[in-house]
Amino acid sequence: MTRKICVVVGSRANYSSVKSAMRAIQQHPDLELQVVASASALIDRYGAVVDLVEADGFPIHERIYMLVEGENPATMAKSTGMGLIELPTAFDRLQPDVVVTVGDRFETMATTLAAAYMNIALAHTMGGEVTGTIDESIRHAVTKFAHIHFPACSDAAERIIKLGERPEDVHLVGCPRIDLVAELLERDKNGLGPDLFKEGVGGKFDLNQPFLMLSQHPVTTEYGDGEQQITESLMAIYQLDMPAIVLWPNSDAGSEDVSRGMRKFREHYDDSKIHFFKNLPADAYISLMNCTACLIGNSSSAIREGAFIGTPAVNVGTRQSRRQRGTNVFDVDYNREEIADAITDQLRHGKYNMEPIYGDGHAGERIADILSTTSWKLQKQITY
Amino acid sequence: MTRKICVVVGSRANYSSVKSAMRAIQQHPDLELQVVASASALIDRYGAVVDLVEADGFPIHERIYMLVEGENPATMAKSTGMGLIELPTAFDRLQPDVVVTVGDRFETMATTLAAAYMNIALAHTMGGEVTGTIDESIRHAVTKFAHIHFPACSDAAERIIKLGERPEDVHLVGCPRIDLVAELLERDKNGLGPDLFKEGVGGKFDLNQPFLMLSQHPVTTEYGDGEQQITESLMAIYQLDMPAIVLWPNSDAGSEDVSRGMRKFREHYDDSKIHFFKNLPADAYISLMNCTACLIGNSSSAIREGAFIGTPAVNVGTRQSRRQRGTNVFDVDYNREEIADAITDQLRHGKYNMEPIYGDGHAGERIADILSTTSWKLQKQITY
Amino acid sequence: MTRKICVVVGSRANYSSVKSAMRAIQQHPDLELQVVASASALIDRYGAVVDLVEADGFPIHERIYMLVEGENPATMAKSTGMGLIELPTAFDRLQPDVVVTVGDRFETMATTLAAAYMNIALAHTMGGEVTGTIDESIRHAVTKFAHIHFPACSDAAERIIKLGERPEDVHLVGCPRIDLVAELLERDKNGLGPDLFKEGVGGKFDLNQPFLMLSQHPVTTEYGDGEQQITESLMAIYQLDMPAIVLWPNSDAGSEDVSRGMRKFREHYDDSKIHFFKNLPADAYISLMNCTACLIGNSSSAIREGAFIGTPAVNVGTRQSRRQRGTNVFDVDYNREEIADAITDQLRHGKYNMEPIYGDGHAGERIADILSTTSWKLQKQITY
Amino acid sequence: MTRKICVVVGSRANYSSVKSAMRAIQQHPDLELQVVASASALIDRYGAVVDLVEADGFPIHERIYMLVEGENPATMAKSTGMGLIELPTAFDRLQPDVVVTVGDRFETMATTLAAAYMNIALAHTMGGEVTGTIDESIRHAVTKFAHIHFPACSDAAERIIKLGERPEDVHLVGCPRIDLVAELLERDKNGLGPDLFKEGVGGKFDLNQPFLMLSQHPVTTEYGDGEQQITESLMAIYQLDMPAIVLWPNSDAGSEDVSRGMRKFREHYDDSKIHFFKNLPADAYISLMNCTACLIGNSSSAIREGAFIGTPAVNVGTRQSRRQRGTNVFDVDYNREEIADAITDQLRHGKYNMEPIYGDGHAGERIADILSTTSWKLQKQITY
Repeated sequence: MTRKICVVVGSRANYSSVKSAMRAIQQHPDLELQVVASASALIDRYGAVVDLVEADGFPIHERIYMLVEGENPATMAKSTGMGLIELPTAFDRLQPDVVVTVGDRFETMATTLAAAYMNIALAHTMGGEVTGTIDESIRHAVTKFAHIHFPACSDAAERIIKLGERPEDVHLVGCPRIDLVAELLERDKNGLGPDLFKEGVGGKFDLNQPFLMLSQHPVTTEYGDGEQQITESLMAIYQLDMPAIVLWPNSDAGSEDVSRGMRKFREHYDDSKIHFFKNLPADAYISLMNCTACLIGNSSSAIREGAFIGTPAVNVGTRQSRRQRGTNVFDVDYNREEIADAITDQLRHGKYNMEPIYGDGHAGERIADILSTTSWKLQKQITY
Repeated sequence: MTRKICVVVGSRANYSSVKSAMRAIQQHPDLELQVVASASALIDRYGAVVDLVEADGFPIHERIYMLVEGENPATMAKSTGMGLIELPTAFDRLQPDVVVTVGDRFETMATTLAAAYMNIALAHTMGGEVTGTIDESIRHAVTKFAHIHFPACSDAAERIIKLGERPEDVHLVGCPRIDLVAELLERDKNGLGPDLFKEGVGGKFDLNQPFLMLSQHPVTTEYGDGEQQITESLMAIYQLDMPAIVLWPNSDAGSEDVSRGMRKFREHYDDSKIHFFKNLPADAYISLMNCTACLIGNSSSAIREGAFIGTPAVNVGTRQSRRQRGTNVFDVDYNREEIADAITDQLRHGKYNMEPIYGDGHAGERIADILSTTSWKLQKQITY
Repeated sequence: MTRKICVVVGSRANYSSVKSAMRAIQQHPDLELQVVASASALIDRYGAVVDLVEADGFPIHERIYMLVEGENPATMAKSTGMGLIELPTAFDRLQPDVVVTVGDRFETMATTLAAAYMNIALAHTMGGEVTGTIDESIRHAVTKFAHIHFPACSDAAERIIKLGERPEDVHLVGCPRIDLVAELLERDKNGLGPDLFKEGVGGKFDLNQPFLMLSQHPVTTEYGDGEQQITESLMAIYQLDMPAIVLWPNSDAGSEDVSRGMRKFREHYDDSKIHFFKNLPADAYISLMNCTACLIGNSSSAIREGAFIGTPAVNVGTRQSRRQRGTNVFDVDYNREEIADAITDQLRHGKYNMEPIYGDGHAGERIADILSTTSWKLQKQITY
Repeated sequence: MTRKICVVVGSRANYSSVKSAMRAIQQHPDLELQVVASASALIDRYGAVVDLVEADGFPIHERIYMLVEGENPATMAKSTGMGLIELPTAFDRLQPDVVVTVGDRFETMATTLAAAYMNIALAHTMGGEVTGTIDESIRHAVTKFAHIHFPACSDAAERIIKLGERPEDVHLVGCPRIDLVAELLERDKNGLGPDLFKEGVGGKFDLNQPFLMLSQHPVTTEYGDGEQQITESLMAIYQLDMPAIVLWPNSDAGSEDVSRGMRKFREHYDDSKIHFFKNLPADAYISLMNCTACLIGNSSSAIREGAFIGTPAVNVGTRQSRRQRGTNVFDVDYNREEIADAITDQLRHGKYNMEPIYGDGHAGERIADILSTTSWKLQKQITY
């Protein structure tokens, strides 16, 4: 009998993290895909992800408007409340066998509770990892409600089992985002048109020559140190006198410190070999990861996508301290000498072989296969 | 500086489980008590617990109507959603330092998420225990959001630590319900007036002579076996030819089977020494536990309150299989010989000394003391 | 092209008021019926009307749980809010051409606003009448949102036009409840089995002989006068020394006064010819209206159903003061002599011919016909 | 005894419409002002009106986040639902004697229903006017719930009475927005600094010489005609060869047509005497109305503020067709000759005396005075 699998897509990040699984579910003979679009996935000013989903060939079964305006902690809770009011009606109509929820954003709790309270099996992707902030609690709480776990790496799989889940319910499948990376690199080995340098500011150079890449964000728990931290990385690159692409930091607390460090560097040092980007399309970023001589900074991409692509990487500081990593990553402190030495070592080593730590590009298919055959225990009980 | 402690009371059971802590918080010089009444605590047909709370001298700061009628899984989720819409506004107004949530009922998730999303420290009582049903997932999920844990027994405390919580955040305080038991027994050593037998049906007898008590509920995972299970217990009592009080089962699935077994017994056997009760006031039940020669069945009271009171108990079957227990409990199978033998052993032993497994009657004071001094880490991270 | 007509049923009273229209819509070749069950229609303790609706052959397209427990003014507003959150999603899925809403209960505003805000034409039954309480404001506010009006009597139709609605949008169709009366009387000319007197208390008598009926409720604006008011009516009946059926009052404020008057009467006077009913099934009540010699009191049924059935009626006091009425109704004051004289006059007159003031039994068909052909103006504007 | 007056502010427009009344209530010895900020008044991207309100010296008693993102008809209804869930709790806490609601935006229904269902007297400003769209229905529906009416003009007052409201509940006070106009003109007779022409594009000129002003919006019911309509007005101005300020249209449906007409005019004709503004601060607009030789177009300001300021105005077309107006307004068709002739007549006439049709600048004080003394009937009943 065909199993009905209902995927709830709540944001752009959500969608990237589950898209390959959705396609595999759609194509699987024993599965029927149901799509619920909710939260920011429905909102124009967040990019109307729902239109993208439809354009990719996935019919939308339900649209659940749940975001309460205000963008503060209270409205985050209220939005979850709105989801909890409407999602049960949607699930009641769709009667799915399994609801799939992704990751750890606040709206994930609405999907999780609605499914769990209604006695519908819950599958959870990307559980078991460690970060910080409220996401951390949400992620592990979802694990305690989920019946089927799809962690992205072995470390996370072990943590889910330590949380008292049954090993037979934990399926190490890899991260479905890596599936999209694999496709992109397959499809378009050199996705970098000549127009890349039309955006951003600073020097331009030949991407066929060895170049460095720097992506370094503020560390929220080290607030105030961002300027010094980025300066060390920039000076390491400057010493090596190689062309480099530098990305502006994300908007986490402390972002202004990092930006100030970058602006001061540009004012005092020759940046004729360095190009600065505010925004870089996701595909271009992946393509650059595929051809850079070394990716420096503290982006999770160096570790997650990097392991798959084989990008030589120098991870600076504490931001990724508890994330499982492959041999492509050298860890160093916020110190220009250490950073420069590590880059030099990576230049000597060159590109790495693929390590499937966060998946081998087939996570989506695995998820669909497992969903088509696995059994679960609706009445959960902690294993210890 | 005085800390503001906000207790959310959502039901009658909730209130019994936190009342002694509320009183201790109210009386503590460094704490200020805030009370939010919500869910069934506000509803007349559930006994208007809120009036009781006020009569006990606790002012109600907020009333959050959140129960959506329907009493089905969908409205359970919707009710939680309603709570999530209103509780943040209440917390925003009250600005508590700590929110206290109790146990594992569905509405507990609303309190938990509202506090957690709003960056308010969350204290949780009675976490870490093992049961079944959706309560099990809710309880452990709340643990993953809570900053301060007040488990009732050492077993639960260890489980909370295994769930990746920091040991310094886990405070073994005992169960505040035991505080009420202690008070009752202190106040009223023989709370059983001559009117006890006015309710119920069957034989009457002198409570100063040794008598048995039977409280046995359906086991939802052994649906269909209830009639045979209760019959074994009843026949064991019958063989012993002692006076006994027998309680009707609760309303869990399978309740009808147990009731049928009891009805058939009454039709076929002499029940002149056995008195059957549909409802017994909580205080009378505790008083009977204090003077019965042996409590038989599968009620959690034999284990929790029993350890404190020292009630000789024979626990039948699997319903309490994962609950921590003291020496007062003998475990036996659904077998009349085994049960009768165990009762005989208990009669020989007589009353036990108090074992503080689920508390020594001072849980509430401990909770208040700890809340007045403990520190916590608002940004949680799993310990492994 | 077939028009989709979505009827929202929110309570038992709602359903009786729209059932004949639902059937006519369902049978109409150019209409497609959609049914949304909501509010108390879904709740077991209000009689699970939704099961009745299904048993009558109407498929339920959506179930909207919206009642927030508490039964106070705040939860009345919150329940309407819940309806407003979910009904738009339901209407979005059903895409009706017209939404039909009934009467003036608080949940009607949820249906009304959801349809109006979503630019769906709204049809309203039983608008334009005058009562009191919050229903009065709700009814006229719904009129200001509705595009198609189905008043039950000419008086109400005129009032709707005075409220600034276009005459061409106002269709005097009669009350669909009368359709059910017509059917009942057609089907079962004497629906009164021999078991009628098994319920209730007091004297029994032969229903083939002339008998009186008394149905008198408290007048909320004359709070405190209920005992005296009912006593006058009872004494009038007592003076006439005829057998009578007396109904207990409804639960409006002041109900206790009326009940006290009835109890005192029973204590002091011979009631061997009077039978008192707490609850009388709706069908039995209608059958009794069809054979009673005179209906006394202040029930709206004397006026509405009475005009159709031809029941001789004596309307006492102010409760029905602004309701349009036929020749079958004599109005008198709270005065035993006046009441007795009016009854005597009615006995002399005997049964009346049908007056179609509140309909001729074909309201449902008319509503369906009009819905299939009428046009409307989605952008309303007041006519003056 | 002091009466508590609770004003619900839901948007920037709301606030301008009630600000002078809020101040008068705050200063009145017998009144106590309560402020609830809700809907877009709380949202940063709508200008965080709540901060403005606080800066103006009004304390905010409650903040009700109720806007559900999506900006479509369904979320308009859902947002109203959110308001209905939270406002009753706020009103329950504030216990106001009167709730004041403004105008006809969708969120006004939440305030209205919450107050009405909770048996709190409702005062409504700016009722009784005629427009189109859903606002029209909302405005009249609010009238049917309101107990105290504060219409802005005599025409509206009469319409409220025709709607069946008691004349003694209808208080013609004028529009509180005019109070702000009066203050502005008092404070700053020439609020137009030399920087006016720094914004916008086109010719610059001396504002001390006679100049024209054109503010013309699309007429939603004449969709598609906007380009031709604006062209007639522009050509009329062009023929007169006078300096002019032209405002870009608002964003109603058809806006693009009007804009196209303006762009084409600029391409084909000399605009060295015409200055075009996209946005003009409200204060500058009022100051310009005070010194322009003639205001042309179809803005309501020509009629409302114009009557008070005495601005010579030529109202073109149907957009204001049912709005009460003074002698300062000449009505003409979409025809360049007619328009030019009417302008010429206005130039000859010059400025008008103040006509208090929409108020004399003292509406706020009147509202406060009436609220302090008036009585009302909580149980409303239509007058006919």
